[in-house]
Amino acid sequence: MTKPDAWGESLAECRRLDREDLLTPLSRQFLIARTLIYLDGHSLGPLTRSASAAVQRTVRGEWGPMIIGGWNEADWIGLPARTAARIAPLIGATPEETACADSVSVNLFKLAAGALALRPERGTILMVEGEFPTDGYILQGLARLRPDIRLKTVPAPELTQALDSDTALLVSSHADYRTGALADLRGLSQAAAAVGALSLWDLSHTTGLAAIDLNEAGADMAVGCGYKYLCGGPGAPAFAFLARRHHAGFLNPIAGWMGHARPFDFEANYAPATGADRLMAGTPPILSMAALNAALDLFDGVAPQALLARSRALSSLFERLTAPMAKAHGFTLVSPADPERRGGHLAYTHPEGYPIMQALIAAGVVGDFRAPDLIRFGFSPLVVSRSQVWTAAKTFASVMENGLWRDPAFSQRQKVT
Amino acid sequence: MTKPDAWGESLAECRRLDREDLLTPLSRQFLIARTLIYLDGHSLGPLTRSASAAVQRTVRGEWGPMIIGGWNEADWIGLPARTAARIAPLIGATPEETACADSVSVNLFKLAAGALALRPERGTILMVEGEFPTDGYILQGLARLRPDIRLKTVPAPELTQALDSDTALLVSSHADYRTGALADLRGLSQAAAAVGALSLWDLSHTTGLAAIDLNEAGADMAVGCGYKYLCGGPGAPAFAFLARRHHAGFLNPIAGWMGHARPFDFEANYAPATGADRLMAGTPPILSMAALNAALDLFDGVAPQALLARSRALSSLFERLTAPMAKAHGFTLVSPADPERRGGHLAYTHPEGYPIMQALIAAGVVGDFRAPDLIRFGFSPLVVSRSQVWTAAKTFASVMENGLWRDPAFSQRQKVT
Repeated sequence: MTKPDAWGESLAECRRLDREDLLTPLSRQFLIARTLIYLDGHSLGPLTRSASAAVQRTVRGEWGPMIIGGWNEADWIGLPARTAARIAPLIGATPEETACADSVSVNLFKLAAGALALRPERGTILMVEGEFPTDGYILQGLARLRPDIRLKTVPAPELTQALDSDTALLVSSHADYRTGALADLRGLSQAAAAVGALSLWDLSHTTGLAAIDLNEAGADMAVGCGYKYLCGGPGAPAFAFLARRHHAGFLNPIAGWMGHARPFDFEANYAPATGADRLMAGTPPILSMAALNAALDLFDGVAPQALLARSRALSSLFERLTAPMAKAHGFTLVSPADPERRGGHLAYTHPEGYPIMQALIAAGVVGDFRAPDLIRFGFSPLVVSRSQVWTAAKTFASVMENGLWRDPAFSQRQKVT
Repeated sequence: MTKPDAWGESLAECRRLDREDLLTPLSRQFLIARTLIYLDGHSLGPLTRSASAAVQRTVRGEWGPMIIGGWNEADWIGLPARTAARIAPLIGATPEETACADSVSVNLFKLAAGALALRPERGTILMVEGEFPTDGYILQGLARLRPDIRLKTVPAPELTQALDSDTALLVSSHADYRTGALADLRGLSQAAAAVGALSLWDLSHTTGLAAIDLNEAGADMAVGCGYKYLCGGPGAPAFAFLARRHHAGFLNPIAGWMGHARPFDFEANYAPATGADRLMAGTPPILSMAALNAALDLFDGVAPQALLARSRALSSLFERLTAPMAKAHGFTLVSPADPERRGGHLAYTHPEGYPIMQALIAAGVVGDFRAPDLIRFGFSPLVVSRSQVWTAAKTFASVMENGLWRDPAFSQRQKVT
């Protein structure tokens, strides 16, 4: 039980800190109800004014009047490269090393299949246990296509030890989708390189949240999501990174025309574009990509270093405010207790996690649930304020202390999140 | 030279026929300037009122207020299946045999790679010469990934003869992207089946134009484009067809989570969904797919048989009206002279095709150019009227007879179309 006095005091302090925080004004970019406490930016970022306007402009101002002419007049053909160039500084890459295309799943396939061709004498893909499912599925599918390749899965702490002279590729998420725990991007990239293996990172849960420096880390390849912290909209196009040193040798196995050196010459034979733009395949979904491109306005003039620091301050506040209640009600924090080892979300296990999260959502605090028993609270640094975290913690306590989650309406099996 | 009398007479006749045509009122669904004669629907279909409203609703009415809740509340998760179910009747497939996902290029890769696994004892992919470039590039990329596979390219008339007991897969477009010539969908599918090979069709230039019956033809697989006659918007998601008889054995090589039987159970191992939905991979681009889904309103209550008939009436009219001028100015019609053998567009070669098309576009008649010397005029049956065809023919004659295309402004190399 938390004392009313303690809550009251800390809310005033939260409000004061919010007022002083230089990132606070950026939250006005979001078209989000002020009564909603949105702790699910790690699943889907909210709509920005800029993205909304860009989609409207692309539909009514470009597709409508220009039709086919939009490819030239509105430079749709340059939209993937323009968007990639805005993502590049968020991941420590050059524009030439970054492509915006397809989904995380498809990009992971391209890079992993291409990586195997760069290490033809090696037969193992090493993957972290508990990796985000689609990453594992994609690699399983690739292994079916290449029966000479073995997919080896080990727990995160054993990755470095499992690297050996047969390892062609190491695949890992930067932040674990369940716990938010950060992997050692630099250490693992270097360890892979030391045995001659390539590294392929899934940055879905850190891009737009943390200051990532792929080139400083020595990473070879990466994929990442456009619809989480980047706020590009549901199913926004994903991105892919290919380090410059691989540009000469890398072939995209999905050799579509948009990755061709001269797509509009209609040549009979494939010739890859010079940089990471060879990672493109088919015609990009312009409406969805226009939203992503405009959402990236969020990061103009923001120091990436400030983002994770604020997110960690928010998650630490939530953890601290809810700790006594969480302990009393049987929650287990599965995220690292040390904020320095976390990404943008906190996760707890609880056998009744599903109805508890539904009750929280009904009370205006939107986190999410991952089967079988995980609830997650995300702290998007541009979306969430300290005073919202305070209110969320109070609501969480109220839902548990009053048993609101026991209402049968909250127990029905969800369709999706 | 065409006589003014003849032109005047036929315009009146065109207007009368337009008034009597039951499809004419559907053109009001398009948000297109009435002064524009748009003969490029085979490249990018124009914006419909319905698509425009759907995108606005999805952005401001769903993503904005619902954020992550949109997957359930607005049933984004069901959007690919709902969209596929609307495409299915246009191609003679059941909804369970149809998926809406990714691009034509990516879908072709999935199906071709999966087809090889269904015919493991065979080593040849047979492709028609002059196939749309990205189809060829994709198959070349697949052949690099599978060095045991040979990609054999033969002219269209020799396809049947080239089929043999080593052929795993026959790949062909239904309509040639240059000439519009229709392939014998049924005959070639049956010929492939007769030697135990699978057939994979690219329906990009006929879906939404012709009454296609894949199951009646005995076709095994198909891909098609969402942004040409289907009017789904620039880079709209594509579709894929997998005949029911292959559902048990087919594995998607790009085994992303959206093609999993239970994507939100977060299982460690891949298990394919039951039908063609296993062809999905990553999270679909919802904004772009919402536009496609709404654009399909166009086909509600339209008999597909009426579409190609009208398109052929339009292309025949254009061909007839321009024939004397075309001959006098050195154009060669490369489309089949017999309208029954054509799809939705007419193509001519001319050494000065590029500046000629630019001059036509400047005069309000939008066709397109394909390197090195091809100009194309498309006759979308729901977009174009007979009186517009008449005006287009007259403008074409005027551009040639007055040498308007010789203005140096029209000769610069185009970026894209």
